[in-house]
Amino acid sequence: MEKLYVIKIGGDIVNNEQKLTAFIKDFAAVKGLKLLVHGGGNQATKMAIQLGIKQQMVDGRRITDAETLKIVTMVFAGLINKNIVAQLQAHGCNALGLCGADGNAIQSHKRAANLGGIDYGFVGDVDAVNTGLLQSLLALQITIVLAPITHNANGLLLNTNADTIAQEIAKALSSIYNVELIYSFEKAGVLLDVNNDDSVVATLTPTFYQELKEQQIIFAGMIPKLDNAFAAINSGVSKVIIGKAEQLQELINGNSGTAIVN
Amino acid sequence: MEKLYVIKIGGDIVNNEQKLTAFIKDFAAVKGLKLLVHGGGNQATKMAIQLGIKQQMVDGRRITDAETLKIVTMVFAGLINKNIVAQLQAHGCNALGLCGADGNAIQSHKRAANLGGIDYGFVGDVDAVNTGLLQSLLALQITIVLAPITHNANGLLLNTNADTIAQEIAKALSSIYNVELIYSFEKAGVLLDVNNDDSVVATLTPTFYQELKEQQIIFAGMIPKLDNAFAAINSGVSKVIIGKAEQLQELINGNSGTAIVN
Repeated sequence: MEKLYVIKIGGDIVNNEQKLTAFIKDFAAVKGLKLLVHGGGNQATKMAIQLGIKQQMVDGRRITDAETLKIVTMVFAGLINKNIVAQLQAHGCNALGLCGADGNAIQSHKRAANLGGIDYGFVGDVDAVNTGLLQSLLALQITIVLAPITHNANGLLLNTNADTIAQEIAKALSSIYNVELIYSFEKAGVLLDVNNDDSVVATLTPTFYQELKEQQIIFAGMIPKLDNAFAAINSGVSKVIIGKAEQLQELINGNSGTAIVN
Repeated sequence: MEKLYVIKIGGDIVNNEQKLTAFIKDFAAVKGLKLLVHGGGNQATKMAIQLGIKQQMVDGRRITDAETLKIVTMVFAGLINKNIVAQLQAHGCNALGLCGADGNAIQSHKRAANLGGIDYGFVGDVDAVNTGLLQSLLALQITIVLAPITHNANGLLLNTNADTIAQEIAKALSSIYNVELIYSFEKAGVLLDVNNDDSVVATLTPTFYQELKEQQIIFAGMIPKLDNAFAAINSGVSKVIIGKAEQLQELINGNSGTAIVN
């Protein structure tokens, strides 16, 4: 099977124009078939503040009300997505930006309020990836750039976690390609000491993951990210690596980051 | 050659949620290959006001400064484009939204300041349409939805007139398809009395156009629109019709609107 890199670029890099520009250059240089999933970072929050739209947060997670949905659609699928695409084009990488509604790329349903009664609003949980569309575009030597917005096929756009999108895309395409999934962000990988990039764990097994969670060495936002990573490696994705966006080629070469194994 | 409808939907319809929804339903029902170009209406202006960003106007035309470019990218390529796509998907029309940077669909250059010294800012004049990409997508039975943002292949996004984009796309694709170009907007076509939809001109020849301009019956924003329409009919587009968005099927059937002839 042909190799395909599914690369997620995290929000903190997207927030930083200089780092994003450097990443885009490195991403453009990656050889072979590739697909980029980007988060939105805090640019949607900034825009909401500028527009005077209060952001409701529950347990550190944003509630996507109707006004916030408009903002994330504008900022993620418009401003960020199109600027990444334009920069990739400038590096000779024929990128094409999509959100999940485009070509019915990613269908989702609106998440129901949870048992605790928390309603996250216009948030989508992924139901289906249109592998046929993605395969057709990849066959045209197009590099797909995905914004974390999906749709419910009933006209509703839904804000969707970018780590989850990367996982779902990687899983779905692993029946067609030899998929390597790379979660790139501001840290060097899974760290034993969150403030020390030298404490990176080279290989994370399910047992070790469990131990590190119990010792609260892994906590907060890393848990859903790693749950996504394990879900991918358990479902046919051939390699899952988590590491520093500034070291993209090293992550691909296996010389940096944390390898998730099952 | 296979028939392709290139349909432009004007800003005043895009501003009106109810009219836009009705138009999208009618557009979804159009049989055969089709491509939609949408304007942005006043939603970018509204957003600029909300954000406290002053809009500079010269002779009724917006100056696209750096902040305004961000806004039009968000609003046109994000909010409006993705909502149209999601609604088309809900009607069973497999739409995919693009701006000109996506897949290098439309390349442009930044317009130089004119002889009068007016600099319109980040505004693009179209250089090339990537017919190969559009043809590949159409062959997948995808309906393309184009936002009026192009790129200069050097990483710069540029605000671009949607009427011109429709014309350039129609012209470029007329070597591959039998293209019919429809400019749909809030009026019934070219009117002898701007306030009376019954005064519609059924057929507009270059001579008649000249006369109506001299008599100032045709003026203001209709002139660049009609210049685009004549440029299209003079360059291989098989039919150009201007008329009411609410009568899309009648425009296609030739039972409504103004036909531009050369």
